[in-house]
Amino acid sequence: MSEPAAELPSLWLLEPGPEQDVVVSSRMRLARNIDGYHFRSRFREGEALKLEQHLSGLLGEVDQGLRYVSLESITPALREVLFERHVVSHEHVAGSQPRGVAFSEDGTTSVMINEEDHLRLQVFGSGLDLESLGNKIGALDRSLSERVTYCFAPRFGYLTSCPTNTGTGLRVSVMLHLPALAFKPEEGKPIEQGIIKVHNAAQKLGLAVRGMHGESSRAEGDFYQLSNQVTLGRSPEQAVEDLQSALPQVISYERQMRDILFKDDRPRIEDIVWRAWATLTHARRMASAEALSHLSSLRLGVCLEIIDSVTIPTLHGLMVSMRPGHLQHKAGRELQPQERDVVRADLIRDTLSRDRC
Amino acid sequence: MSEPAAELPSLWLLEPGPEQDVVVSSRMRLARNIDGYHFRSRFREGEALKLEQHLSGLLGEVDQGLRYVSLESITPALREVLFERHVVSHEHVAGSQPRGVAFSEDGTTSVMINEEDHLRLQVFGSGLDLESLGNKIGALDRSLSERVTYCFAPRFGYLTSCPTNTGTGLRVSVMLHLPALAFKPEEGKPIEQGIIKVHNAAQKLGLAVRGMHGESSRAEGDFYQLSNQVTLGRSPEQAVEDLQSALPQVISYERQMRDILFKDDRPRIEDIVWRAWATLTHARRMASAEALSHLSSLRLGVCLEIIDSVTIPTLHGLMVSMRPGHLQHKAGRELQPQERDVVRADLIRDTLSRDRC
Repeated sequence: MSEPAAELPSLWLLEPGPEQDVVVSSRMRLARNIDGYHFRSRFREGEALKLEQHLSGLLGEVDQGLRYVSLESITPALREVLFERHVVSHEHVAGSQPRGVAFSEDGTTSVMINEEDHLRLQVFGSGLDLESLGNKIGALDRSLSERVTYCFAPRFGYLTSCPTNTGTGLRVSVMLHLPALAFKPEEGKPIEQGIIKVHNAAQKLGLAVRGMHGESSRAEGDFYQLSNQVTLGRSPEQAVEDLQSALPQVISYERQMRDILFKDDRPRIEDIVWRAWATLTHARRMASAEALSHLSSLRLGVCLEIIDSVTIPTLHGLMVSMRPGHLQHKAGRELQPQERDVVRADLIRDTLSRDRC
Repeated sequence: MSEPAAELPSLWLLEPGPEQDVVVSSRMRLARNIDGYHFRSRFREGEALKLEQHLSGLLGEVDQGLRYVSLESITPALREVLFERHVVSHEHVAGSQPRGVAFSEDGTTSVMINEEDHLRLQVFGSGLDLESLGNKIGALDRSLSERVTYCFAPRFGYLTSCPTNTGTGLRVSVMLHLPALAFKPEEGKPIEQGIIKVHNAAQKLGLAVRGMHGESSRAEGDFYQLSNQVTLGRSPEQAVEDLQSALPQVISYERQMRDILFKDDRPRIEDIVWRAWATLTHARRMASAEALSHLSSLRLGVCLEIIDSVTIPTLHGLMVSMRPGHLQHKAGRELQPQERDVVRADLIRDTLSRDRC
């Protein structure tokens, strides 16, 4: 089994993006199923493989830049790396049927075959970039639709495995860094956390706010995903518009709160930022959750110009390269959690001291 | 009321001392009461002032190097500073009767008047220094006894306010830094903390082990005071001998454990030391307890030669100068706890970066 390790997609998060002080990244995905095949949960014997071969061939015709990898042909370690780069989903990695992914060299486009739906098209961009992502995914979708017939019902729209995607099959989301809105006031200060207001407002607009890895009120590292909820009865343009109209308010709310915090609580903010920098540049062992929390503080420190010895793209890069799959891929072998903590601390120290100008 | 601020005793802890990797400091004190006066708790009207005047005059005759300060003549802030330099005790500061202290310029000798007993003679030294302390306090005691008659009963020895001091009136103690013995094994490693063994062994030898500020099983900063318990029925020489005979074992036990830890758990130790250094040199706010804990880790790091950019005496100096009284004395005004945390962090950063060569 040959290991296509040298041909990983690039880390697009290393590119700077619009509004990157608050918006980490943008993503769109379309769920599509192919007429003439059963839905994945009802596949007959051999149908998954047949569909994989059919669609992977098509993808090569549609876009010669897409490179196809069967998930069964690569090691679990490499699957983990692709997952950590958002090229494939957790569900896709965990699957057992013939399945795979076509991705562009720059990592901003990927098409999963036999994930929850027959096809999951995804496009990504650094910062706030919904318009160009919409054009890109629309073009890919149209090219594919010229070569296959999608499952489509006039009354519903595109049909999907899970009814929550039926209609447009579209999920538009942005990853936001909201440390000031998530900031917990010191004891005795009866200020409501801004993030709770954002949650409530989003709900009214039919948008969802989720933490990076779950739905707790305070997300790991204060990274929150804002996405559309409704796919049925709204056009793709409307879904994008829903998000587009809410975003400027959230972004400026976060910026205002950063200004207020920095004015009212400067020693506290500086303390948090410098401790994060100090710990990241000196620790000899560090677990993921702690590292993410410090990287988040450092990201805020860079935005507030408390620290200028590191750039936001470097921090974004670390957030991916410090994850277990990447650490093990780099080491070329499996690492126990304790070893990973040592290797992670080494990587972070090296990266931050290299970036320092 | 003139403020003798410029004439504070020196910080003797800034001197290096024998066995200073484990022994921070040595101390001896004698409790004495003067025949012809009631014990402090039974003082009659005017008796405290009369005794203060009597004894403070005598002290000037006995040793011209001793400078007498009436605690009622100085500000509470300055009393706090003297307390933080161990020149006076907490009880002495908190008292309300006429009382005072005579101390040498180098801060290694002090005599409290009207503390729990009429006289409390104290001598200090950096590192392990019991022999010279014994000679020093013995000479001072003899000189005084030529000028006053101590309360003494042949059957008991020197009589004191509290029966736990009756007999020799002597307390011999050493402050030990025992981070390796107090080190808590990582979960799953069923190793008994060495400090518990020290506690048990000390008890059998009639010695007491106390934390810096209390008697918890893990002391703040892992600083433990080892002292004699018995004053009745043993000579002063025997008390010193009891401590002297136990010390080499404790010291070598701590050194062994440091070696073992450093060999078996090096990444963990290096992580703790570097995080302490990083946080101390970068934080913008720091409470006393956190600072003491990091200074303790750093002290271990210096002893293990993980860090060479700071010396042990500098760390000892910080442990005193970062305390609330010293911070406020330096600032020339009262500081709220939050302000103190900022000023403390500034002082620590400045001191450690200055010390760095």
